[in-house]
Amino acid sequence: MSQVEQRLADMGITIGDAPAAAAKYLPFVISGNLIFVSGQLPMQDGAIKCQGKLGADVSLEAGEEAAKICAINIISQLKAAVGDLDRITRIVKLGGFVNSTADFSQQPAVINGASNLMFDAFGETVGAHARAAVSAPALPFDVAVEIDAVAEFK
Amino acid sequence: MSQVEQRLADMGITIGDAPAAAAKYLPFVISGNLIFVSGQLPMQDGAIKCQGKLGADVSLEAGEEAAKICAINIISQLKAAVGDLDRITRIVKLGGFVNSTADFSQQPAVINGASNLMFDAFGETVGAHARAAVSAPALPFDVAVEIDAVAEFK
Amino acid sequence: MSQVEQRLADMGITIGDAPAAAAKYLPFVISGNLIFVSGQLPMQDGAIKCQGKLGADVSLEAGEEAAKICAINIISQLKAAVGDLDRITRIVKLGGFVNSTADFSQQPAVINGASNLMFDAFGETVGAHARAAVSAPALPFDVAVEIDAVAEFK
Repeated sequence: MSQVEQRLADMGITIGDAPAAAAKYLPFVISGNLIFVSGQLPMQDGAIKCQGKLGADVSLEAGEEAAKICAINIISQLKAAVGDLDRITRIVKLGGFVNSTADFSQQPAVINGASNLMFDAFGETVGAHARAAVSAPALPFDVAVEIDAVAEFK
Repeated sequence: MSQVEQRLADMGITIGDAPAAAAKYLPFVISGNLIFVSGQLPMQDGAIKCQGKLGADVSLEAGEEAAKICAINIISQLKAAVGDLDRITRIVKLGGFVNSTADFSQQPAVINGASNLMFDAFGETVGAHARAAVSAPALPFDVAVEIDAVAEFK
Repeated sequence: MSQVEQRLADMGITIGDAPAAAAKYLPFVISGNLIFVSGQLPMQDGAIKCQGKLGADVSLEAGEEAAKICAINIISQLKAAVGDLDRITRIVKLGGFVNSTADFSQQPAVINGASNLMFDAFGETVGAHARAAVSAPALPFDVAVEIDAVAEFK
């Protein structure tokens, strides 16, 4: 088991099968030593875990948890891409989209659910990433959060 | 004529002049073997083809068609970048923004209009890309869809 | 002083300390010869300079100015990344998010505030970038504009 998966296991998180793409595209593409991961949704065991909007029917805590599940799915895709997660040399960038009302302004706190998991799973150096966190008025299947990623591997 | 343009011609699609940037920036930038394509709009022969919002005045079919036109414009930019489209080794990533109401949740179906064209034009290997599909509450010139892209070439 | 900073100084712009990340992530990450800059907000001397929505309480001029401040902060991050800004060989891509109402369609004009500064600071070749400009229904801390970036350096 990779060190990354051991750390995740210590937090009670298992990296399962990577979710399939929702349409005619791929969940990740490798170019050079970069992995571009498609926008991941808060799917767990094939089911959507968190629907609705921050600022209305989804609490900040539920939004953070949704972001964490997106991050777990990003890690699943990275594992599918490189096999051994210890080959990941850097989480380069997360792009976080929060399904929210027009008066919600805590996008960073929501996406922290994903950022914190990356630090916990990959450590302070490899897990430290750039990111953008913005709102969207709506997201696929009415999920609360969607996050895409770029990672570097060797 | 490149194989890619032949396939497009067989579908009745001609790759014309690449649309100019709407302001003081470039329609694409090359860095290493990656081409970063600016957000493309559903422009055809200099005119905007699809305005309005999904979930309100734009149907799913019209949205898919708008996404397809964005994809044709991405391909036009790639041709302007590398000359021969057969030099494109991978459509790496599409970033799709759907102009929609807050209760619209079929962003993937809309952006499929672009994804399907990439598969049809570049084939299953080169055309297979990562992507994100989200909504925006508004887009430039009130277009229904905007899509940016990263592609790899040799 | 780098040529880039001299040009900025001639415009009355000083590149100060780069803003800290708003949460558990980094303001930039280097991968290969690319710098991925996190979404920058219109922060100046630690204070948010422009809050609200285009199309409602923020004028086009104020939005452009907010985009310009985001660009100054992107340049601050690039300086923190490479030390000497003359090492930047290309502003590759800007991703601009405009906090707006659903009927606002001048995203390009707003983000021009950032694009123009990149041209002025880095010159026509290095400063010429790809970009996407879209709206978001809400942004962190209710800022009017958020912009992330990819740049190339040697």
